[in-house]
Amino acid sequence: MAGDGSDQRALQYEQTLMYGRYTQELGVYAKEEAARLRESGQRRSVSDRSRTLDLLEYDKGRCAKCRICTVRCQKFLISRVGEDWIFLILLGLLMALVSWVVDFCIAICLQAQKWMYGGLDSNVFLQYLAWVTYPVVLITFSAGFTQILAPQAVGSGIPEMKTILRGVVLKEYLTFKTFVAKVIGLTCALGSGMPLGKEGPFVHIASLCAALLSKFMSLFGGIYENESRNIEMLAAACAVGVGCCFAAPIGGVLFSIEVTSTFFAVRNYWRGFFAATFSAFIFRVLAVWNKDEETITALFKTRFRLDFPFDLQELPAFAVIGIASGFGGALFVYLNRLIVQFIRKQKAINRFLMKKRLLYPALVTLLVSTLTFPPGFGQFMAGKLTQKESLVTLLDNRTWAKQGIAEEFDYIGHSQAWKHPQVNVFVTLVLFIVMKFWMSALATTIPVPCGAFMPVFVIGAAFGRLVGESMAAWFPDGIHTDGTIYPIVPGGYAVVGAAALSGAVTHTVSTAVIVFELTGQISHILPVMIAVILANAVAQSLQPSLYDSIIRIKKLPYLPELGWGHHEKYNIRVEDIMVRDVRYITLNCCYRDLHNVLLTGHLKTLALVESAESMILLGSIERAQLQSLLSQQLGRPRRLEYIRERAVAEKKRLSVVSNPCSEDGTHRTSQEVRFQISTEESTFSPARPVPQKPLKPALKRPSVVERPTEIPTSPHDNSGIALKNLFCASPDTEGLEDDGDVEDDMTIREIAEWEEMQLDEQVNFNNCKIDPAPFQLVERTSLHKTHTIFSLLGLDHAYVTSIGRLIGVVSLKELRKAIEGSVTVKGVKVRPPLASFRDSGTSSSENEATELHKLWDRHKSMSLPREHTPSESDEKSQ
Amino acid sequence: MAGDGSDQRALQYEQTLMYGRYTQELGVYAKEEAARLRESGQRRSVSDRSRTLDLLEYDKGRCAKCRICTVRCQKFLISRVGEDWIFLILLGLLMALVSWVVDFCIAICLQAQKWMYGGLDSNVFLQYLAWVTYPVVLITFSAGFTQILAPQAVGSGIPEMKTILRGVVLKEYLTFKTFVAKVIGLTCALGSGMPLGKEGPFVHIASLCAALLSKFMSLFGGIYENESRNIEMLAAACAVGVGCCFAAPIGGVLFSIEVTSTFFAVRNYWRGFFAATFSAFIFRVLAVWNKDEETITALFKTRFRLDFPFDLQELPAFAVIGIASGFGGALFVYLNRLIVQFIRKQKAINRFLMKKRLLYPALVTLLVSTLTFPPGFGQFMAGKLTQKESLVTLLDNRTWAKQGIAEEFDYIGHSQAWKHPQVNVFVTLVLFIVMKFWMSALATTIPVPCGAFMPVFVIGAAFGRLVGESMAAWFPDGIHTDGTIYPIVPGGYAVVGAAALSGAVTHTVSTAVIVFELTGQISHILPVMIAVILANAVAQSLQPSLYDSIIRIKKLPYLPELGWGHHEKYNIRVEDIMVRDVRYITLNCCYRDLHNVLLTGHLKTLALVESAESMILLGSIERAQLQSLLSQQLGRPRRLEYIRERAVAEKKRLSVVSNPCSEDGTHRTSQEVRFQISTEESTFSPARPVPQKPLKPALKRPSVVERPTEIPTSPHDNSGIALKNLFCASPDTEGLEDDGDVEDDMTIREIAEWEEMQLDEQVNFNNCKIDPAPFQLVERTSLHKTHTIFSLLGLDHAYVTSIGRLIGVVSLKELRKAIEGSVTVKGVKVRPPLASFRDSGTSSSENEATELHKLWDRHKSMSLPREHTPSESDEKSQ
Repeated sequence: MAGDGSDQRALQYEQTLMYGRYTQELGVYAKEEAARLRESGQRRSVSDRSRTLDLLEYDKGRCAKCRICTVRCQKFLISRVGEDWIFLILLGLLMALVSWVVDFCIAICLQAQKWMYGGLDSNVFLQYLAWVTYPVVLITFSAGFTQILAPQAVGSGIPEMKTILRGVVLKEYLTFKTFVAKVIGLTCALGSGMPLGKEGPFVHIASLCAALLSKFMSLFGGIYENESRNIEMLAAACAVGVGCCFAAPIGGVLFSIEVTSTFFAVRNYWRGFFAATFSAFIFRVLAVWNKDEETITALFKTRFRLDFPFDLQELPAFAVIGIASGFGGALFVYLNRLIVQFIRKQKAINRFLMKKRLLYPALVTLLVSTLTFPPGFGQFMAGKLTQKESLVTLLDNRTWAKQGIAEEFDYIGHSQAWKHPQVNVFVTLVLFIVMKFWMSALATTIPVPCGAFMPVFVIGAAFGRLVGESMAAWFPDGIHTDGTIYPIVPGGYAVVGAAALSGAVTHTVSTAVIVFELTGQISHILPVMIAVILANAVAQSLQPSLYDSIIRIKKLPYLPELGWGHHEKYNIRVEDIMVRDVRYITLNCCYRDLHNVLLTGHLKTLALVESAESMILLGSIERAQLQSLLSQQLGRPRRLEYIRERAVAEKKRLSVVSNPCSEDGTHRTSQEVRFQISTEESTFSPARPVPQKPLKPALKRPSVVERPTEIPTSPHDNSGIALKNLFCASPDTEGLEDDGDVEDDMTIREIAEWEEMQLDEQVNFNNCKIDPAPFQLVERTSLHKTHTIFSLLGLDHAYVTSIGRLIGVVSLKELRKAIEGSVTVKGVKVRPPLASFRDSGTSSSENEATELHKLWDRHKSMSLPREHTPSESDEKSQ
Repeated sequence: MAGDGSDQRALQYEQTLMYGRYTQELGVYAKEEAARLRESGQRRSVSDRSRTLDLLEYDKGRCAKCRICTVRCQKFLISRVGEDWIFLILLGLLMALVSWVVDFCIAICLQAQKWMYGGLDSNVFLQYLAWVTYPVVLITFSAGFTQILAPQAVGSGIPEMKTILRGVVLKEYLTFKTFVAKVIGLTCALGSGMPLGKEGPFVHIASLCAALLSKFMSLFGGIYENESRNIEMLAAACAVGVGCCFAAPIGGVLFSIEVTSTFFAVRNYWRGFFAATFSAFIFRVLAVWNKDEETITALFKTRFRLDFPFDLQELPAFAVIGIASGFGGALFVYLNRLIVQFIRKQKAINRFLMKKRLLYPALVTLLVSTLTFPPGFGQFMAGKLTQKESLVTLLDNRTWAKQGIAEEFDYIGHSQAWKHPQVNVFVTLVLFIVMKFWMSALATTIPVPCGAFMPVFVIGAAFGRLVGESMAAWFPDGIHTDGTIYPIVPGGYAVVGAAALSGAVTHTVSTAVIVFELTGQISHILPVMIAVILANAVAQSLQPSLYDSIIRIKKLPYLPELGWGHHEKYNIRVEDIMVRDVRYITLNCCYRDLHNVLLTGHLKTLALVESAESMILLGSIERAQLQSLLSQQLGRPRRLEYIRERAVAEKKRLSVVSNPCSEDGTHRTSQEVRFQISTEESTFSPARPVPQKPLKPALKRPSVVERPTEIPTSPHDNSGIALKNLFCASPDTEGLEDDGDVEDDMTIREIAEWEEMQLDEQVNFNNCKIDPAPFQLVERTSLHKTHTIFSLLGLDHAYVTSIGRLIGVVSLKELRKAIEGSVTVKGVKVRPPLASFRDSGTSSSENEATELHKLWDRHKSMSLPREHTPSESDEKSQ
């Protein structure tokens, strides 16, 4: 909604003339427009033709005709089906290849570890060394590689994608470097056999692919520059990421929607489906071509009986799995966050770990792999199985603990790992669940590209299996009473548990669909749905989702969801939460006002009102625009012009003036001192830059504070340009003043006087970009509606007006605070599970209010507020 | 975003005083608010307690304690999980019961028909009579019953729900009468055995249930009055409708999202899933309790082999099914619309049918049932099978036409119907597809509650079966080459075909999920997804979806979707489509301006600007508000007051005046004539009411124009209040003037003079509701973004401003025209399939522009425009 204000004003007269054109001759206009479009189309086809001719010239060999044919085909496809299809097909193909190659490499890595471990069976110590060293090396390499190449690649990527899809520009998150770091880092991390997942990173990788592909295809022209289209494509890419990771197109689309969007445009639906299906298809076809499979089937195919999948009386057991998974999921999120915060808080540990940056990953890996060492403790928790193998065995449709029946279950293949000569299979399962639980929570805090979905999925499956085996032991002949015996299928319970726990951790319902697609069976749909919904209900009332938790830890800009059944939200109105002390500038203000406003406020944009009396809102101006206005007014070129004019005036008077007292040397010093003077006179101290920090791209970089704050250059983020840069003569400004015929002969005092004079001039907004229609709310708008509008339109702030008069402003911060009182200004307050049942949400509002109070006091005292203290920036998070 | 302007202005001072409260003492405020909430909670619990005491008093029997317990439980549940859950559970339960009972009744009806037909096997003529009369009676009853009780219940209901969820208030669509009419009408219609579906009506029924339940629960207080909550609940209800119809919770949620929403709030996702799962669960549990099933399984369970569902080389065949289904789906939509328009156009037929309103349904039913008469033509198209039976046989996992193998396929059960002694099974299938195709298209135009999903689904399954059988005949040993023989499964093709055709007709991808849930097998996921996507791609490029087609036929307010790959949409800007001649009123205008503006414009709301020079947009005012302002100014009470004042003034002068010349009789005539005079003087003819018709609630009522236009009373729709009502002294105004001590002694001339005087007064906007923040766009906003914003926020119009200055307005109409040039102002232009390949979308823009031209000319000549000609109102549509 941004438009060039002055241009529009200039166009006004022309538009009045063109009045008739739009109302009475719309038809003519439409025709003209169509003709224009046709013409441009023809022009394009002409250029296409010339391109084919070029090709002929260039390549007179056999394949020239073939090429022309291809080009024609491409042209036809583009004109008929649009360029989106081609883009989506390419994206799907690319991601399927990436997914397959990554899987292939991971499989090789894991095989190598097994081979090493197996080959050294003569000596347990050597075995242990091999077992432990291998993952430590891989993880350390992964962490180091990622750290060096692109620290943005660390972690899951879903939280960042959620933020990006909300409209926030996270720099460096969608670059080629990040892509390489993420793919290689992920392969190494997963190849180590640690309990890490592939899903989250794949969402990020797919988005990277989409962004790079967009950039690549924009070389050929077309629509690839359009920003809103790119956002749509990113949403589709997220679906592709999940889809090609699990060969689950439907679940992928749904999961990506649930995880990344607040509002979803149904018109983008087909994009996700199309790309994800194509990707999943290619992914599975590659497996067939590689002779891994005979035909395309599910990734973790199950073979439960179809005629009687479960009895109605088993439903309570499924519900129990759901509820327990809900608590478990909340605990997992809590545990994960606790670990991050513990490491961050312990200054001593922190400092040590930060110095030796790769020590933490190595230590964690050492701990985890020591505990899973098969001849050691690993024998009690099926430690020698890889994640994939564990899942396959857990989803097995045979019962492991069939008591009372003579035939001993023959643990064939990998299932042997679950059977220990001395220990019951139940103990093995319990140990597996408990150990894997904290291991996964710990492992996902390692700064390598990794997700948490798959580990949680496996733990859930194990938990389900445990319940299933217990049920099977309890009812050896099944529950069904009439006639036929239908024994209980513990594998079905494993499916339910996997869906429920992963659903609870991610706060999604679509894990149910993913489970069906992964197993290739939908017979357990009702138990799965019931368990997933119950798990979600419990988990959502206790903790944020894992991704939201990470968003908070990383302090990404976000808007919390309105919770389930908190109906007071409907009664809170904008007037209750808005900030009434709006920073504004008037249409006829002078540069001094501008200066003052810029120094006191901290919002990205400032309201432009007609006058302080009428307060009629005319638009909003970006901070950077005002800063450049001010710098233009006070800049050197203008001053030189002033000097020139003065000189001309002097010459006219023909009076003799004394020689300029300042030479080149003094000139330079005057330039350096000038700034201080001007600020001393205006009683501010703008030597410190405005604290609008760019979104930290390197959350895991510990030394981010020691280095000077980077000045972002993207148009979206340039509000952080420090005042200092603008006031001091920067190299850019220096470059502009090439008309060096006038010498800067002003004294410091003169400059100060001149600046004072300049500051009293009225601002000329002509060359200033004004957003003429910032979003407006009314005092009576409910919080619920405000939330909807903010998340729908991805707003950062909205003005509250009353019949055109500006009366307040609501920004994301106020909204966030109004929705959840629990998050303080400084970082995340870790809330233990069940906390929401204890406090009623008001206990922490005091804390936050004093925080706000302080902030306002700081504003009042005209010092520049710094929202984040340096000690917080060296955060290390998942 | 509506707020009371004057109140806000009055509050301004107070708010300035309360400044500190909001910024500095937010914590205190939050505490107060919390205390207030707690207090109200306590008050409620006190009232609960007193209610329980009342119960004790009232019912001293045994169950009193039980009741208290229930009340406490309820209280706990409400406080913990929120009222939404209870609502959703109730909704799910209710809908499951309704669905089950309807199914049960339908089954009985169909059995009765079979029984009658079977019992009369001695005489073919009697058999024919029984076979034909039964459905004719049922359909006629259904049509008549619906017509009499609630004509809104006719048709599928999905188009209306889509419109309602867009924010448009369709009156009478969510009443108890409609509910009863829809349920009973649907049961009878489906019980007749006609090729009609249950899905669409169930979406409507579920929404009705939700609306009624909301109303019912609002009796107990709470949050049930909230409008935005109700919309959320309606969205969930649509999911429940599909979910309990097919026992497909996931598919139900997705289908309802695709079919009814443009933008979907992910935070409502769980509501749909929860309610739909619960509903599907209860629906299937009822079947188990009724001993129909042993446990909960899919509705149309298939038993395809799991290990090798299909070969990769079969994929081209699936793709062919998809593409053919795409063309078929487009043809179906076209055919359906063609029939409606044919009947509407043929004036003679139309008039005859409209007089004998039940003749059309009876004739159609007679035709269809004659053709399906089993001993007649029906033997060649499996006519004796009900829809459900056909589907079950089509999804059978055995091959019907296995050539070359000795063992003859034994057609057991219903499958026998497909085997004709003389005719090949292929011929039967082809005949079935062709006949059912036009029959379904015709049957869904009958004015009874009915959907088209299920018939289309069955046709798709038959088409898939046909392809599958052909493949099986072509490759008797399957395509797979290495080792084992995997014969082709034609049932799998049927599944693919069903999903593809229904997806093509409804333009949804989620039919794939519905198919998996219906069959209980997900093994064919890739073929199904590929076919559905291809079918959608083809169908969407040729025709609108069936529901959009109906929306256009019924002329419901809608916003077309942005098509696939039409990228010029990114380049059109608001300035190209906006209307520059905005009707506005200024803050200091007089009543005469108001009068003029009201007579010339036709938009629901008018812009309020500061002054004609500055054009700064202050807000928008509803037409009705202005009308009431004007009527207050010119109304009788004011005139009487004027007379009183004049009398007082006269008395003061103490001069003798002549007796009032008009008595009671003349008074009355003066009142009646006054209106004409005032209008003659202002050279307008506002005797005709403003043509802002309320949304036709009775689309199928042919005589809607003959009856006087109903004045809507809902606050949402009161813009249609005719000027006539306001100018003439209505009974309401009469009732207000109780201070009858002054006699209305003015002559006609005096009144006219007085009114002229009144009209010259400045308008006092104090008692007028002003929307202070109407939605604003900028000239440079792209069409794509405008579309997004309109559909996101459900806007009706938006003002285009440039730095606060109003320069244009864009309404739904302009947007719609800009998006699709093909729909003219008058009704739907039927486009044959493939039309979009012929014209490039600009050919019809001329027509539309002249239409616009005419409209504007009409505005200029100050006559009141009537957008719809009367002949159009008696539309009869699906």
